[in-house]
Amino acid sequence: MLETLKKEVLEANLQLPEHGLVTFTWGNVSGIDREQGLVVIKPSGVAYEDLKLEDLVVVDLEGNIVEGELRPSSDTATHLALYKAFGEIGGVVHTHSPWATSWAQASRPIPALGTTHADYYYGEIPVTRPLTQKEIEEAYELETGNVIIETFRNLDLDPKAMPGVLVSGHAPFCWGKNAYEAVHNAVVLDEVAKMAFHTFQLNPQVQAMDQFLLDKHYLRKHGPKAYYGQN
Amino acid sequence: MLETLKKEVLEANLQLPEHGLVTFTWGNVSGIDREQGLVVIKPSGVAYEDLKLEDLVVVDLEGNIVEGELRPSSDTATHLALYKAFGEIGGVVHTHSPWATSWAQASRPIPALGTTHADYYYGEIPVTRPLTQKEIEEAYELETGNVIIETFRNLDLDPKAMPGVLVSGHAPFCWGKNAYEAVHNAVVLDEVAKMAFHTFQLNPQVQAMDQFLLDKHYLRKHGPKAYYGQN
Amino acid sequence: MLETLKKEVLEANLQLPEHGLVTFTWGNVSGIDREQGLVVIKPSGVAYEDLKLEDLVVVDLEGNIVEGELRPSSDTATHLALYKAFGEIGGVVHTHSPWATSWAQASRPIPALGTTHADYYYGEIPVTRPLTQKEIEEAYELETGNVIIETFRNLDLDPKAMPGVLVSGHAPFCWGKNAYEAVHNAVVLDEVAKMAFHTFQLNPQVQAMDQFLLDKHYLRKHGPKAYYGQN
Amino acid sequence: MLETLKKEVLEANLQLPEHGLVTFTWGNVSGIDREQGLVVIKPSGVAYEDLKLEDLVVVDLEGNIVEGELRPSSDTATHLALYKAFGEIGGVVHTHSPWATSWAQASRPIPALGTTHADYYYGEIPVTRPLTQKEIEEAYELETGNVIIETFRNLDLDPKAMPGVLVSGHAPFCWGKNAYEAVHNAVVLDEVAKMAFHTFQLNPQVQAMDQFLLDKHYLRKHGPKAYYGQN
Repeated sequence: MLETLKKEVLEANLQLPEHGLVTFTWGNVSGIDREQGLVVIKPSGVAYEDLKLEDLVVVDLEGNIVEGELRPSSDTATHLALYKAFGEIGGVVHTHSPWATSWAQASRPIPALGTTHADYYYGEIPVTRPLTQKEIEEAYELETGNVIIETFRNLDLDPKAMPGVLVSGHAPFCWGKNAYEAVHNAVVLDEVAKMAFHTFQLNPQVQAMDQFLLDKHYLRKHGPKAYYGQN
Repeated sequence: MLETLKKEVLEANLQLPEHGLVTFTWGNVSGIDREQGLVVIKPSGVAYEDLKLEDLVVVDLEGNIVEGELRPSSDTATHLALYKAFGEIGGVVHTHSPWATSWAQASRPIPALGTTHADYYYGEIPVTRPLTQKEIEEAYELETGNVIIETFRNLDLDPKAMPGVLVSGHAPFCWGKNAYEAVHNAVVLDEVAKMAFHTFQLNPQVQAMDQFLLDKHYLRKHGPKAYYGQN
Repeated sequence: MLETLKKEVLEANLQLPEHGLVTFTWGNVSGIDREQGLVVIKPSGVAYEDLKLEDLVVVDLEGNIVEGELRPSSDTATHLALYKAFGEIGGVVHTHSPWATSWAQASRPIPALGTTHADYYYGEIPVTRPLTQKEIEEAYELETGNVIIETFRNLDLDPKAMPGVLVSGHAPFCWGKNAYEAVHNAVVLDEVAKMAFHTFQLNPQVQAMDQFLLDKHYLRKHGPKAYYGQN
Repeated sequence: MLETLKKEVLEANLQLPEHGLVTFTWGNVSGIDREQGLVVIKPSGVAYEDLKLEDLVVVDLEGNIVEGELRPSSDTATHLALYKAFGEIGGVVHTHSPWATSWAQASRPIPALGTTHADYYYGEIPVTRPLTQKEIEEAYELETGNVIIETFRNLDLDPKAMPGVLVSGHAPFCWGKNAYEAVHNAVVLDEVAKMAFHTFQLNPQVQAMDQFLLDKHYLRKHGPKAYYGQN
């Protein structure tokens, strides 16, 4: 069942420690089969070095376990909320990658300060508001998804052009057209967060880059007029 | 004698360089057999790459050597004080891991700024007061243990929910239910210390996270209502 | 065709991930055969681990593809502008290496603060002005080259003695007598940028080093009176 | 000739890249045979991965080449000045290790802020004054040694208890009873410099540690009452 998707989700999960994004089990990747409405996700608390294809859990969009012996990631409800709200995404990843998490803990969005950022994130990477006590106590992981969706609605952001977010006091979530692209965007986010940190230390008054430079770099990699790469 | 415990203590010691927590021999791990009242600890000044099972030293809770050819870690008296005061811990680790040590040198406690912290440390990670001249000259390592215990008593902290401390002007000590968990907590501490450092640089006015978010994260990993992982 | 140059350009490209200068495909190296007026350059968006000799693209100085199945680096026009303006250089490299990029994003030149800098860069490493909207929209990559050339002309800099530049809001370009030396200078630039960052944090009022120390170090490695190394 | 010393100097040189202290060829280690008055030193500009026993150069204390086909390190005159002034040292190392070099470029001494520092360096690690134009132009490397010696004389420092120095605007030199210990001290210096940097960021008003804690740590590792390690 869903063998191709499972292989992709397994490999994408294993890319997290390879790219230095996770300590211990602090991360999880999922992928969705939109036709069947099924999501493959990492089991909770399993070490990456022990993770095998058969450990992955298949859930439907309501969170019912369809296949798998293990308990799915404790963040499953967040993933599902994102899949339901953002119809075009195919993979979701959550990590506590150190630089992005530092910005999330500081509750600061990451302005677009350079072309590295612009190549992947079309504008300022947003940070959510803090969750309320009620949200945390009643349905924490679901409400984490909801506050991300609220943030994107309030800022009128397109999840395809802004494939990640900082959850205030917590850490980042990223996504993409599939699990690989989600992880790719998570790597970029941490690198961009690191460089933005140092840029602000060097120049506390630095402003977001010019809109036309942002446009140029984002659109040379994305959309009908892209000319980066081989496709 | 104590073969299982020795293997655990050996492996836990070897995890220190694997996780990048130690330079040269700047760290030591011990584990205790509570029934026999015996502690297995790293010998003093032996390089990790040379460390073998038979090098480990067995001491009783008064510090008498029960088995072993080598001198035990110079920090043994600190370990023993912690085992005697904190009855539920089974492993202790001391390192000079760079981020936690920087906070210790700055004599600043690490506030809980995000969920990474909350998953393991239930509140602000404390820093001890400086030792007095008398304490240092008369029984330095024992008094290092005593000042930790005093700190926990003054702040009414539960060593199970707060498995580590910063010794002012020195470095961290961590512990856990066994030697592995002690090292695990030491890794978390350094990662948390690193992210807290960067968070404060990004937002010098940042406040400790909301208590209800701290509760949520700590309790989803610990205690009777935990639902993280597979147990 | 150009087999020796292709091997050099391939190896120089592969040195970028070895030295930790690139994430994913964020970098490209080229080399020129001055006699034939042909440039060998990395193809666009190809992963370093997949890069093979036959993937390299040969272009003339007007950017016409002379050999190769793949599209050349999207930054090719910048490389060509530099080869045309700086007649003595034989290799060009562009990366988003994290420390140099942070300075570029902060739009700050890197003053010569110590002998590490002076050994390779004879004075302050310049930063360009931002590109105008017109430049970006009409011929972005070409104008990136032009603004570098303009910067060198305005500051009366010799590209041999100043083998790199920061493009404002973007990232560095470096060069050298061949592709290897270009990469070598890119490694040095990131290391120098890192140390200059930390130096300014330690001493915000730090001044550029004395001219006579700069002279001494640069000239003991370069020019007719050099006495560093074995040649 | 001097085979044992050569092996030691070779291995000590190779430890520099292993410990991440050098980029390219930015470092050199020497060792002395006091009876014969001969120094074995790295040749200038040779890559560590290519360095072989027969490449090492033997010089006398006046800098005359006694054995070896290659030119000795360009910093040889500094090493020799240190051997002549500091009669008890047996090995010298120079690197541009990134953290210590940042302090050197900032012209700030590194105060003793914690026990990691106190275990090896008995007090504040000094920084020299800048060299004068005359010193640089007439005998740069020799005067680099002389300004170190002047610094130690002015501050009344014992080279055995203070096995390293920062040369203003340049980088560190370290030493020890042999080449291995010199490299060991260079590793410690960079680690101490890193932690001191972060400590000052966390607490700009931090004061040097108490003298009695400094005494305790230094003396538990050094001198007749040492009880750290197995000897």
